[in-house]
Amino acid sequence: MSSLPHVLITNDDGVQSPGLLALKQALEPMAQVTVFAPDHNWSAAGHSKTMHKPLRVHQVALADGTPAFTTNGAPSDCVGLALLGIVPQRPHLVISGINRGSNLGHDVTYSGTVAAAMEAVVSGIPAIAVSLDERRWGDFAACQQAVVRLARLVLDCGLPPNVLLNVNGPAVPSDQVRGLLVTRLGQRVYRDVLIERHDPKGQPYYWIGGEPPTGVPEDGTDIGAVANGYISVTPLTMDLTDYAFLPRLRDRLLGDAP
Amino acid sequence: MSSLPHVLITNDDGVQSPGLLALKQALEPMAQVTVFAPDHNWSAAGHSKTMHKPLRVHQVALADGTPAFTTNGAPSDCVGLALLGIVPQRPHLVISGINRGSNLGHDVTYSGTVAAAMEAVVSGIPAIAVSLDERRWGDFAACQQAVVRLARLVLDCGLPPNVLLNVNGPAVPSDQVRGLLVTRLGQRVYRDVLIERHDPKGQPYYWIGGEPPTGVPEDGTDIGAVANGYISVTPLTMDLTDYAFLPRLRDRLLGDAP
Repeated sequence: MSSLPHVLITNDDGVQSPGLLALKQALEPMAQVTVFAPDHNWSAAGHSKTMHKPLRVHQVALADGTPAFTTNGAPSDCVGLALLGIVPQRPHLVISGINRGSNLGHDVTYSGTVAAAMEAVVSGIPAIAVSLDERRWGDFAACQQAVVRLARLVLDCGLPPNVLLNVNGPAVPSDQVRGLLVTRLGQRVYRDVLIERHDPKGQPYYWIGGEPPTGVPEDGTDIGAVANGYISVTPLTMDLTDYAFLPRLRDRLLGDAP
Repeated sequence: MSSLPHVLITNDDGVQSPGLLALKQALEPMAQVTVFAPDHNWSAAGHSKTMHKPLRVHQVALADGTPAFTTNGAPSDCVGLALLGIVPQRPHLVISGINRGSNLGHDVTYSGTVAAAMEAVVSGIPAIAVSLDERRWGDFAACQQAVVRLARLVLDCGLPPNVLLNVNGPAVPSDQVRGLLVTRLGQRVYRDVLIERHDPKGQPYYWIGGEPPTGVPEDGTDIGAVANGYISVTPLTMDLTDYAFLPRLRDRLLGDAP
């Protein structure tokens, strides 16, 4: 038995992603790492729980020979399956990533990377989601350093109930990253467009396509931080209650005819 | 052109669900209703955006003859496709439901019903998600009344940016429902278990099964409200930033060795 803390890692891009390998290698000196990741890429998977079909679990090896569990389920299923007993030892921390592409602003409600972290938080285990701007894909050093620092902090101090950390690396070379900034979620600008095509029988079908989202690079936000070359760290809560609006809604309903 | 407000409705259970029909019939006197729902049931779908496969759109009819759009995409895709142009007129309000089964506490992060409402909010359209305890399935009257009252309120007063209303009907007959309560999210208790089976070749596969979740029926929460026979109305924000923890995290990182 190792006396190192036990960290479960997963991702959204699939078990063979170099981002997962980079995460594993960063954590290796400080933790006993278990890898459990989807056997294929899940993009914009959201927070799902696969209850309508059977899940397979296989053992594979990462590119460096590290043994890994893999499943046909979603990123959050990897965490669910691990905690339900596929992985004997309960992890002290779950980390999801390094995702290819940012998860900023409203992206966090779609993101399979964040969803896997949420699944851990639902079970009372602290969690971190890590993503890197697609334009710096492969240059993992700054994200690796950040995740080790944050993992140590979380293992030492914990996180409040219902909270996870959402980490995003900027589109600058690792040696030019300016540090960590703690941020709030910013405003994404989605640029989805509907693309209509016709099948050989002339029937229409549609793709949701368009350019990647941009965002408003406001100071204090995740979008502002990465735009300025910082790694953004946003504490996210899974208590979605809008406490500011709640009393106003109550007043409105009381003042309303029944 | 109708001068009534335009309400887009969708759901998670599929276009043929009696809950969708009940929602449509409740809104009919007060709104021009467009129906756009998945062609099959999506359970625990989460907030997804289907970008990896083409989406079909067909026109079908509900049991009362109402024309409806349907797609092979997820609940949130119905809203996305509608707003990207499949439905010519932009809705004033999006309502998702009536879902078969509650969406309480952490359920909201898994729920396709809530995800569809989130997709509307991302596009700046106010939204309501409505669910009914499975034990009263078919007895829609109290939920219908509540949704009409809340739809009027939202159409008259709007909702703050990033906010949606999550509505849950209790497991009591409609004529015994005690009214509406504005609540915060409560604490769900999940009872998932891992079920291992073996295929004809002796290889294992797994189901995530177990009893439905229970919850802590604390006063002031959604779970407490429905346990006491009220319809719960929870304002949810899509700004998941934990503003209370943010400054503490900043202090900890500053005090930490880099």
